[in-house]
Formats: sequence, structure tokens, C-alpha cells
Amino acid sequence: MLAFASDYMEGAHPLILERMMKMNLQPQTGYGSDEICAAAKEKIRRACGVDDAEIFFLCGGTQTNQIVISTMLRPYEGVIAAATGHVNVHEAGAIEYSGHKVLPLPAHQGKIDPEELRSFLKAFRENPDREHMVFPGMVYISYPTEYGTLYSAQELNAVSGICREYGIPLFIDGARLGYGLAASKELTMRDIAALSDVFYIGGTKVGALFGEAVVFTKKNMPPHFMTQVKQHGGLLAKGWLLGLQFDTLLTDDLYLQISRHAVDLAMKLREGLRRKGYQLLLESPTNQQFVVLQNHQMRALAEKVIFSEWEPVDENRTAIRLATSWATREEDVDALLDLL
Amino acid sequence: MLAFASDYMEGAHPLILERMMKMNLQPQTGYGSDEICAAAKEKIRRACGVDDAEIFFLCGGTQTNQIVISTMLRPYEGVIAAATGHVNVHEAGAIEYSGHKVLPLPAHQGKIDPEELRSFLKAFRENPDREHMVFPGMVYISYPTEYGTLYSAQELNAVSGICREYGIPLFIDGARLGYGLAASKELTMRDIAALSDVFYIGGTKVGALFGEAVVFTKKNMPPHFMTQVKQHGGLLAKGWLLGLQFDTLLTDDLYLQISRHAVDLAMKLREGLRRKGYQLLLESPTNQQFVVLQNHQMRALAEKVIFSEWEPVDENRTAIRLATSWATREEDVDALLDLL
Amino acid sequence: MLAFASDYMEGAHPLILERMMKMNLQPQTGYGSDEICAAAKEKIRRACGVDDAEIFFLCGGTQTNQIVISTMLRPYEGVIAAATGHVNVHEAGAIEYSGHKVLPLPAHQGKIDPEELRSFLKAFRENPDREHMVFPGMVYISYPTEYGTLYSAQELNAVSGICREYGIPLFIDGARLGYGLAASKELTMRDIAALSDVFYIGGTKVGALFGEAVVFTKKNMPPHFMTQVKQHGGLLAKGWLLGLQFDTLLTDDLYLQISRHAVDLAMKLREGLRRKGYQLLLESPTNQQFVVLQNHQMRALAEKVIFSEWEPVDENRTAIRLATSWATREEDVDALLDLL
Amino acid sequence: MLAFASDYMEGAHPLILERMMKMNLQPQTGYGSDEICAAAKEKIRRACGVDDAEIFFLCGGTQTNQIVISTMLRPYEGVIAAATGHVNVHEAGAIEYSGHKVLPLPAHQGKIDPEELRSFLKAFRENPDREHMVFPGMVYISYPTEYGTLYSAQELNAVSGICREYGIPLFIDGARLGYGLAASKELTMRDIAALSDVFYIGGTKVGALFGEAVVFTKKNMPPHFMTQVKQHGGLLAKGWLLGLQFDTLLTDDLYLQISRHAVDLAMKLREGLRRKGYQLLLESPTNQQFVVLQNHQMRALAEKVIFSEWEPVDENRTAIRLATSWATREEDVDALLDLL
Repeated sequence: MLAFASDYMEGAHPLILERMMKMNLQPQTGYGSDEICAAAKEKIRRACGVDDAEIFFLCGGTQTNQIVISTMLRPYEGVIAAATGHVNVHEAGAIEYSGHKVLPLPAHQGKIDPEELRSFLKAFRENPDREHMVFPGMVYISYPTEYGTLYSAQELNAVSGICREYGIPLFIDGARLGYGLAASKELTMRDIAALSDVFYIGGTKVGALFGEAVVFTKKNMPPHFMTQVKQHGGLLAKGWLLGLQFDTLLTDDLYLQISRHAVDLAMKLREGLRRKGYQLLLESPTNQQFVVLQNHQMRALAEKVIFSEWEPVDENRTAIRLATSWATREEDVDALLDLL
Repeated sequence: MLAFASDYMEGAHPLILERMMKMNLQPQTGYGSDEICAAAKEKIRRACGVDDAEIFFLCGGTQTNQIVISTMLRPYEGVIAAATGHVNVHEAGAIEYSGHKVLPLPAHQGKIDPEELRSFLKAFRENPDREHMVFPGMVYISYPTEYGTLYSAQELNAVSGICREYGIPLFIDGARLGYGLAASKELTMRDIAALSDVFYIGGTKVGALFGEAVVFTKKNMPPHFMTQVKQHGGLLAKGWLLGLQFDTLLTDDLYLQISRHAVDLAMKLREGLRRKGYQLLLESPTNQQFVVLQNHQMRALAEKVIFSEWEPVDENRTAIRLATSWATREEDVDALLDLL
Repeated sequence: MLAFASDYMEGAHPLILERMMKMNLQPQTGYGSDEICAAAKEKIRRACGVDDAEIFFLCGGTQTNQIVISTMLRPYEGVIAAATGHVNVHEAGAIEYSGHKVLPLPAHQGKIDPEELRSFLKAFRENPDREHMVFPGMVYISYPTEYGTLYSAQELNAVSGICREYGIPLFIDGARLGYGLAASKELTMRDIAALSDVFYIGGTKVGALFGEAVVFTKKNMPPHFMTQVKQHGGLLAKGWLLGLQFDTLLTDDLYLQISRHAVDLAMKLREGLRRKGYQLLLESPTNQQFVVLQNHQMRALAEKVIFSEWEPVDENRTAIRLATSWATREEDVDALLDLL
Repeated sequence: MLAFASDYMEGAHPLILERMMKMNLQPQTGYGSDEICAAAKEKIRRACGVDDAEIFFLCGGTQTNQIVISTMLRPYEGVIAAATGHVNVHEAGAIEYSGHKVLPLPAHQGKIDPEELRSFLKAFRENPDREHMVFPGMVYISYPTEYGTLYSAQELNAVSGICREYGIPLFIDGARLGYGLAASKELTMRDIAALSDVFYIGGTKVGALFGEAVVFTKKNMPPHFMTQVKQHGGLLAKGWLLGLQFDTLLTDDLYLQISRHAVDLAMKLREGLRRKGYQLLLESPTNQQFVVLQNHQMRALAEKVIFSEWEPVDENRTAIRLATSWATREEDVDALLDLL
């Protein structure tokens, strides 16, 4: 079987496992108080160009979204997100479980529109009933989005500017950040850090066994954040495992380099699909590609390829997701194209 | 000033206050364990035609929605509601505070469409990712809706049937139930009881000082409901105050009679508005009427009438809400029409 | 039946009902934005001697405790209380429902000991593991306590001083505040206001139909408090009902006057019990008296008197609670003593 | 520095890392739906002697406690635990964050007393006010306890029997289960499975990088458990990492074998401490030993050994914790004893 279902099917970049093996029996202090974590954080600060960035390592995406959002919001605030945003659709209600509403905006291929964001915030501010409503207290976007799309520099600047104007933080879900940065011709990690108030560098989907590095860029880490992480059940005893992974990924640009590999293969795949006349659900420049198949085609393909059924297009057609990752082999992309 | 801002501007029907005065110094046992509550519940059972209906009195609408929804849902379930539903917009996130997502469906003049409901439930059931999503665990509708509109018998039957088909309860928010029943030519309280799994008879807006009577119609009151109400801070020490009010409202059809009064005046108001050429935001057969005014008209009116600013229609026009109630005097409606 | 089960068996002081009747049909704006609420708040400010006190009216004790505690604590904080405190034992977990731990201290006839409080706070501060623990973020005491006892001025000063020293607010549950003030020879409402950061003036048990007046004494009302109250389901549509009751109780010292009545009768009852040789569970100077009865005595008494079974003393004896209130008649106390 | 601060200072048993390395690039399906997880679960079922045990892998102890307790309790229920229990003291309020109260019982060297448990449950059942209280809905014990002590077979049978009698589940926190089983001369994993309703096999502290295997022994896994885990932020994308670790630990009795190693060294340490005249805080038969040191001794030791400051004994003395683990080397124990 060819495996293109997601970008979290394999383990970790070999350099990570090798280092883990090497350090395995060296005792470390608990909960991320160790020196590898400190080193990894320093590397992240440099990559972001934010000397006083505060960083915390967590285990997974939903956990990160829940903890960041609920610890940054006040109790009466909710988080604005695209209707298709991960927090709104695919986290089993983790945000609401923490007591906060997701305030959905229309999604445009996974993205929110800056003007619609501004209108929403303006309408709330002018609403005479607003004291009976959920206050918009944060904007959540994903980069890349769940549909593989990217905000342009102009769009991201606009969203960020509106957040500043209305005094609410911008949170960028970077579960696939590497693939976004590798694909973008405009935006770097420094831009992400500068334009957001908090974001995370996704590890689980980009070379790590597991792990996300949350970066608070404006001296705005919630007080006693470690305690709050523990309260959410998210504090890893052997925190150095997370530090080690990010320290490795942030060394010698490994993170971007392996991301570029995935994006290059995705572009090869996209080109091949186009050449063969397949309809793409949308234009994705990153590692996730969405192809519209006849249902019978899809069923046939499922015999030889693991992919994700994404959404029905109509009665007879379904969009599927094909994802490449840092671990995808070019020969598998070729084999996939041969099959299609 | 003429008062048409809402249907909760006055106190209670005089019969209620008189009886309260009479019973004031008779000691009662606490938390609704008294005989007046028992009598009121019995009257409600008869009005609903459900002999084994379980009834609990609460203090207000948001409290009732929060408690009913959160005690009936399982932790991983959310509640389906119209995007404009009270629970989705005007309860300051009370549902999410209790850990549950509101799953919004498109609103059609405040109502959900049965076919859209079915599609949503079907799509969820067929979604291969559903275990990562919030399970639809209840349907919430309001009767009348926040826009004064009513589900027809056919529509309500359809919604109820779909709920049965998918095995989830139907909850009818009856904050203004009296006005809905008084306006409907098709549906009675027995129908509401038969078609829903739980609903409430609104008192706050229909003749009581405060209070809502929650009716579980299918032997489905959550276990230790009183304890759960207490846990939510909703248990009234002097529960007999609620019993007394509903016992009075349910005697000699008082509830419907005073509701009809409000609806009759609303119809007179609507007729007058039409005659004078005003545009109505929509066709409401109940006690809330929504009129589109030029903003300068609105400002002028505000000098003499208290009303609710509802929503902007465009840059120059705003829809306002004019509500009648059990306490509205015909002379005030006349005076209002004279002003317009 | 003689009724001594609690201090919330009757309705409201007649002056309240009379005024309610008079104002019944005068339209008021919603949610406490009316003028009666404003007037009541002003009277409370004067009674407290705190010109800028912020006041909010709520419906009941558990609701008030839940809302005050959860809106003042940060997510990682808990509230210190006596093990027998209402919030720890008799609120069905309302505090925990809102996400916060009650940190119990040993109870001494319902009171916490200042030195034990200091030790607890000191130990927490010095604990190397404190980041894995619940932070003490508030001290809750009740005045009078659930056992009818009172903190002396010295004790209350000590508790308040320790709170200041450790930078956490002191919250005084005044569900029965009137009875405490009426019984105390040392402390006035001004002292309560000065020594606490937030407290409430109990109405439900002291002359009102229902209602508690929360007083934030240090310009420390949580932001958007009304929205947060709504989110908890605690916002009363007809807020003026609460304002009216407190305005009446705060006029001409009615609150203290009716409280004294209850305390005087309780003292008469206590004296009578002593004379007849009954054992008191403890020395209560307020309206709640706790008598130890043989179980067969208790069963016999239950035929003629409604009282509260409090707690078993041993296999054969039980402590019962006899409560007087603003509404208790002296003749009933006499009749009760005759029966005993 | 010698490292005895905890049993989670090192990585994983080498066999685990080797296998991880081997499988690293083999694509796996997500969220524990893979075959290694299936194999690991089967091995656990056999080790427990419960053919239909339901098993779920989670990442850490606090996460597991929070998720198990909150998904098994009804909203109005709390969990009974020793006052010193991990859930009551060292989880930053994770249980309360999920809405549930921890109902503390007196701790006897970390254990609850069966008779005190029975009394508590009986008193609750007979309490006329119980509907205003938190219902005891589960008993939580840890095996071994946080103090290294073990319930005897008789004690555990008694606790289990009382739970059955009162119809509430028994949850055994097995964060250090291996060390308990290795030390016990009476109890096996089959006994643990038979006597509990749910327990977990701790991996983080016993040979794994991270991970706990929750075992529902009575066909009582909460519905849609995976969804609820996701909602809590606890679902690992690469679930096979957990399966792999437990599959390895459960092969050829590795789990018990490495546990015995730790216990043997702890016994050697204990013997050495005794011989040298040190006072032990209590008698622990497992891998955690608690030694009382003069504060100046403690400070001196801290220059050469990493240990855990446990609790002050008096002004001049402190109890410290010395923990061995699967990774402790005998030569380090010898070196430690030489230092003392």
C-alpha cells in the first residue's frame, strides 16, 4: 500500500531518533526544566528574531489549541475562526470543553477574509446587546490552512493589523508551519512571529515523533503557564523529549529543509494530477492536495493507496486528500501517479 | 414614555401578587418540595396531556437553556440550533461555558429548515472523521423564535420526526410559549408536549415575575436533576414562589388568555404599521414586531418610546423591535400608532 | 406544625410585597439597569461607608458563591474555606463545576483559625512543588458560619490581615449577614466592608423573597461582570425586583431591625433550652441553634415541629437545627419551648 | 551528580528505542488504529486475565486521571481519594478543572482505610441533605501510593468489596504499578484487574518514554471514549508509539522484570540507610524511599545528589524522596550510600 493519508504516518526524522538513543540513559530533570529544552528555546528565539519570546513545548495540536486559547481568553471571550478551522470542526469540541465559544467566520478555501473579520468586530462593538453576547477575544487562523492554502503576506498583514486595531491577539496554528514556510515566497518564520501574538511550530506533522512548540512573541505568556498546562493534563514528565526534538529540527535549518522536500513532492504530484486531467478541489501550494474523484475511482484507488476521504462533492464524486510529508519518497509519488 | 422594548418590563399578573401576599407568611418547605409546586405540576401535566411528565421550575431563560442542555447532553455532544437562536447568540456563551458546542444551522426568519437538519445529521453520520467531531446530541428550537415567527404544524412534525429518526431529543425553548400558542391556529400545548422531548413554559415573559417551567415529556428527566440544578446555581430556596406563579397561570386558562391579549394588540399594531406604509422586517404573527425605520426616524421615536434596536438593515435604516405583552394597554398601542 | 426548619420558610417582609404591588405595572428597563437598583446600590454604599463600592444583585447563595469565586479566581487558583463551609459541603459541587478547587482548612465550630490559615499559605509558598498544585487564590468565610457562630473582631482582623499579607482577596459569605451583625457587639457592616474584598448582604434568609447583594469593596469587580453573570445563567431579566427588595431592606435600618428580632427570639429559645437542661451542640449567638436530642425525642418532636436534622452525634443522639427568622413569632417560640 | 529525584529521569528501556528505530519509517494509520496497538492490547488482556478488557493508551498520569475520572463520573458526582492522593494534591486541580470534586478521606501513609471509606459512604447515603451535596461516584486509590506504600490483599479486597456494595467503580492509579507488583508478595496484575473497575499500567515511570495503558475491566469504557480523549486534548496522532512501547513492555514479562530491578535496588538502599541509622519517614516496600535528614545534611547532599524535597518534618528536619527506577544502576546506589 502506498501511504498518502496524512503527514503523520511515519515516526521522526532519523537524526531525532539517533539523538534520543544517545541521550536515553542520561538523567534529566522533569517537566522541561532541563538544558536541552533551554537550548531548543534559544534556537527558536533566534529563528523568530524575537529575543524575549517565551516558549513552551506541548504534545499535540488539539491540546495546544485548547490550552493556548483557553489560557489566553478571559472567561467571557470566544475565539474567531474560519468555519472550516480545525478548532471549529475537528477537535471534538475541545475549545467548548474549556468553556469558550468558537465564533465562526465564512471560510474561503480555509481562510478568513480580512474585511469580513473587520465587519464582524465592528458590528460587535456597535451592537447594543453586546453585553449579552460572547466577546471576540482572539483570532485563530491556521497557516497553512486545513485546505493547504496560505494567507498571502498582504492578507496576513491585514488580519494582524485588524487584531491590533481591535486589541485582540492573533493566534496562528502552525501544525504544518514548515510546509507553509517552505511553500511561501513571501513569509518567513520571523514574519509569522512578528505578525502574530502567539503561534506554534508544528512538530508532529513535520519531522518529530510528536510535539508542538508554542511561541509567545509579545511577552504575553499566561501566568503560571506550566501549572495551567498541568491542569489540562498536558504536561509531559520527560519534557526533554520535546526539547530534544525541536533542538534537532531547529539545527542547520532541518525543519525547513525537510518541509521543502515534502512541498516539492506535492508540487510534482499536483503537476502530475493536472497533466492527467484530474480536477483539484482547490489550488494548494503546500503538502496537502485535494483531488476530486468519481466514487468508483476512489474505491478502486483505495485498494492500493491509503488516503483520506475529505468531503463529498456531489452524489457521484468525492474529494480525497493526498498528503506528502518529510518522509515521503519520490518513488512513491511516481508510483501513485502511475496508478492514477 | 411608551414602553415597547420587551415583554419583560412589567411585574406579574395581579392575581399572582395577590396570592403571594396571601401566602406570604405561611411557612413552606424549601427547594420546591412544597404543596403548591406539587399542585402546579399536576396542572401542567393536565395541560400537556402527559400524565407522567416530570416538571422542574427554574428562574430564567438562559439558566434553563444551560441546565437543560448540559444535563441532557453527554460530554461529547453538542446542540443543534438556528444560527440566530438565543443559545447561539444572546446567552453570553452559557452553553459553551457548560462545555458544549452549539452546532449552528442556517436560520430562516429564526427557524431551522427540516431538510437542512436532516442533511446535517446524515452528513455527520456518514462522515468518516466523525469521531473527531462534536456529536449532534439534541435539537434546540424556540417557539416562537427570537424573530417572532412560528413553526407550522407540518414543520414541527418534520423536525420532531427527524429527531426520532436520529435518536436525539428535541428541546423547545418556550420562553414566549404563550404568545406562540395564542397565535397558532394549529398547535396546542399538548402538541408541543407530544412533539418534543423537553420544553419549557415561559413565565418571565408571560405573566410571572420570573420563572420557567421545564417539562420532561418522555420520562427523561436527568438523574438527580435537583442536585444538578443546585450545582449550576439555579436552585431557588423558596421554590414555592415558582409553584405559586405557575399554579396561578395554569388556573382557568389564564396563561393563554393573557397571551392572546398580547397577540391581539400586536396584530393591531402590525395592521396599523402596514396601513401607515411601514416596512416590516418579516411577517411575525406573535407579540414581537420588527419594523424597519430610517435612522433619523428611529432617533426621533426614541424620545417618546422605549423600544429595542434590533439590527442594522443598511447604512441608513435599522430594524427595531416593538413587543407587546400580557401587560400592554390598548391605549398605549393606539398612542404608539399615533406617534408613528 | 411549628416551623423552625430554616430561615427561608416564609416570603418577604410585608413592606417589600406592598411596594412590589405598587410598582407592579410600571415598566422598567431590564437586567438591573433601572433606577430602583441604582437607588438600592447607593444605599448600600452608604451603609458600607465605601463610596465607590461596586454592587451587583444576584438571586441565591450558591449562585452568588459560584459566580463570585469563579470570576475572581484565575483558572489555576482555588478557594480556601473551612471544611464545613457551605461551598465545600452543601453546594453540590458548584465551585468545582466552575473549575476551581475548594482548599479545605480544619473547621472550628464552622470557623477557620487565622494561624492555620497563615501556616497553610506559608507552606504553599515554600513548597518546591507548588507549580504542580492548586494556588490558593481567595479566602472564603461565612459570617455567621453555617453553625451560627461568629468571628470576633480580632479573628476577622487577623484573617483579613493575612489575606492582605499574601495578596489574596477575602470573600465573606453573608447569606445570614443581618443575623450576624445583629448578634455581634463588635462588628458593623462598615467593618465587614472594610475587612473584606467582596462580601454579600443576604436577602433570601433575611427578609427578601430572594436575592443577595454582592458588594465589591475595593474597585475590584471582575470585568464585564454582567456578561459573566449571564454566562452562568444568573442574570435576572427583571432586575428591578432585586433592587426593590434591597432598597426596602436598606431603608430605615429595616435589615438590621428584623435581624435583631430573629436573634432576640433565638436567644430566648437558647435560654429556654438551657433552663430545661438540653445540651447545645455549640454556643451560637445568632438565629440558628443546634440542640442535641435523643433520637426518640427527635422523632416525637417531628410530629409537631418542622426542624432540620443536622448531624448524628452518636448512635442514639442527633443534633437538630432550630432557626428563627425575621418572620418568627414570639408565640411560636413559646409554643416550641412548651413542647420540649 | 547522582540522580535519585524520581523514576522518570531517563528515557525508555533500550528495547523500546531499538524497535522504534526499526519501525520509524513504516507508515501507520493514526490515533491508535494500527496493528501494534491491537497486539499490545491483546497482550494486556492476557496479562490481566480479562478477555474482554477494553484498553486505551494515554500519554501521562495527570491526563489519564483527569480523563478516566471525568468520563466515568456523572456531572453531579465526585471522586473519593486519600487526602494525600495525587489527584487531590499534585495535579494542579485537573480533576476540578473537569468539573468534579475530589472528596478527601484521611490518608494513612498514603492509603485510605476501608472502614473510613464505608463510614463515609454510609453517612452520605443516610444524610437527609445529600441532594445538596456532591455524590460519591468513584473511589480512587494509587498502587503503590504516592508514599510508596501498598495496600495488602486484604485491604484491597475490602476497598473493592465496599465499592461493589455501594455500586461505585474502583479506579486504581497504577502510575508505578510495576513497582507495586514487583514488591507485593500477594497481588498480581490479574488481582488488580479483578478487584478494580478501571486501572492503568504506568509506562512513563516504568520503562517507557511516556504512556499509560488504561484498562477497563468490566466492559465499562465510556462511550465514544476516543472522542472524549480528543476533547480533552489527549489523543496522540501517532498512537502506534504508545502501542509499540506497551507491546514491548508486555513481552517476555519485561515490565515486571525491570520493576523488580528497581525494587531490589530500593531495598538495598533502604537496608543501607537503616544500617547507617537514618530515620525513614515510613516503611515503603517499593521504589520510593523517604528519609528524614537534618536540613544541613540535606543541603550538603544536594551538592552531589539530585533528590526530591518531600515535606518538612519540623523546623530542622526535612523528609526527602530517593527513587530508584528500571534504569538505576547498582553502582549508583552504592555511591549514594557511601555519600550518606
